[in-house]
Amino acid sequence: MPPKKRVLITGAGGLIGRVLRRELAADYDLRLLSRSPLDVPGYVADVAHLEAIRPAFENVNSVVHLAASSAVRSGWVDVLPANIVGTYNVFEAARMAGVRQVVFASSSHVTGMYEREAAPEIYDVADARVFDEGVPPRPDSLYGVSKGFGELLGRYYAEQHGLRAICLRIGMVVDDEPLRPATESVPEHERGGWLRTRTIWLSQRDCAQLFARALEADQLVYAVVYGTSDNPRQIWDLDGARRLLGYRPLDRAPE
Amino acid sequence: MPPKKRVLITGAGGLIGRVLRRELAADYDLRLLSRSPLDVPGYVADVAHLEAIRPAFENVNSVVHLAASSAVRSGWVDVLPANIVGTYNVFEAARMAGVRQVVFASSSHVTGMYEREAAPEIYDVADARVFDEGVPPRPDSLYGVSKGFGELLGRYYAEQHGLRAICLRIGMVVDDEPLRPATESVPEHERGGWLRTRTIWLSQRDCAQLFARALEADQLVYAVVYGTSDNPRQIWDLDGARRLLGYRPLDRAPE
Repeated sequence: MPPKKRVLITGAGGLIGRVLRRELAADYDLRLLSRSPLDVPGYVADVAHLEAIRPAFENVNSVVHLAASSAVRSGWVDVLPANIVGTYNVFEAARMAGVRQVVFASSSHVTGMYEREAAPEIYDVADARVFDEGVPPRPDSLYGVSKGFGELLGRYYAEQHGLRAICLRIGMVVDDEPLRPATESVPEHERGGWLRTRTIWLSQRDCAQLFARALEADQLVYAVVYGTSDNPRQIWDLDGARRLLGYRPLDRAPE
Repeated sequence: MPPKKRVLITGAGGLIGRVLRRELAADYDLRLLSRSPLDVPGYVADVAHLEAIRPAFENVNSVVHLAASSAVRSGWVDVLPANIVGTYNVFEAARMAGVRQVVFASSSHVTGMYEREAAPEIYDVADARVFDEGVPPRPDSLYGVSKGFGELLGRYYAEQHGLRAICLRIGMVVDDEPLRPATESVPEHERGGWLRTRTIWLSQRDCAQLFARALEADQLVYAVVYGTSDNPRQIWDLDGARRLLGYRPLDRAPE
């Protein structure tokens, strides 16, 4: 059996970080980076500080970059250090350490205006509109702009610095599963409520599968794909994730 | 005769700033912003500081945003404050002051990898490859990444804050005209030399025309277009600038 890949997870203390730690621990040698101390060993440093995070990148095969100000309504004061400077620092630290791959947690908010201008009608199962990763970015927020920036940066590092970069435009991962209408908490500016959640939901185990498939995509120099579960209504095309990564969602939001 | 539009030029002390000051002064009420004092009246402030630049945006119709670290090889230490923070600050100051339009000096370096991977063959007049603004960004530099970031930000401000944004992916403006092989100074990493300059050249008066056409595009909410002169060989499609802005280049690089 080959040795397990060593994978650094940034933002390891967040919701998705906790999901990946639980779901990927058996197959990968996980190393954790978090701004605040965790209840398990790990590197404690803020991605906004390049020199502080560099030691965490030594002798790592891949980086899963989750650290971010993850609220869609984040202001520039948070987006700049966490998402823009932080993402640059992660790619740069990876390059300096010779890391071969970065899997970047991007977001459908890079193209969120397609959804927002068509909401809530677009959440109807009878609506046929689907957007793939080929549509031009239309960010709905500074958060979405920052994720689009990370995708551009990933392409630059992939093409100029020999680092493979996979950008996963993930949907909505929620803490409380199984998914049911009563558990949702929807920001007021997100029209659609339960219908929206049901459309863009990414279950925890599908989320883990998606990142694992990306970690195994050893031939893929650069890609941007959407990732949600196999929901009754989908507006973001999963064909890229299926075709390029072999992603096969196992869960489906309730009708 | 209607009153002249009041137009704020950021980076007014740079090469393109000087060209626009000379060529547009008759038709616009120009207001200047520069990091260093100019030999004419203007606001002196660094776009990296939002509060410092805000007064310059009061009672302005449009902003021409040129201020940037303009060297393609710029490192992050320059790109971050000048191009990323600076461009955010310009859009945000414009929004706060109720400015209706920002014309953003973007660059073909947002898609520079298409050119670089095909150089120098692509500069041959017999080569038919042409790229339009619909191709996915492939930045060749942190500079190119930062210009792509500015385009994303412009789209966000246009769609969420009612500010019109036109992004001009301009070619190479040179100080010394008429253009001739002996005048060029080509960075060593830019393969192609004179053939490249001849391909992406944007003459000073064509540059001024392009920006003026953008300033008159009162109905255009958002656009990205390439801008070069009518050169013997072109790799960036001018159709967008012609069709959306009515741009008609008057100059042509020598054969």
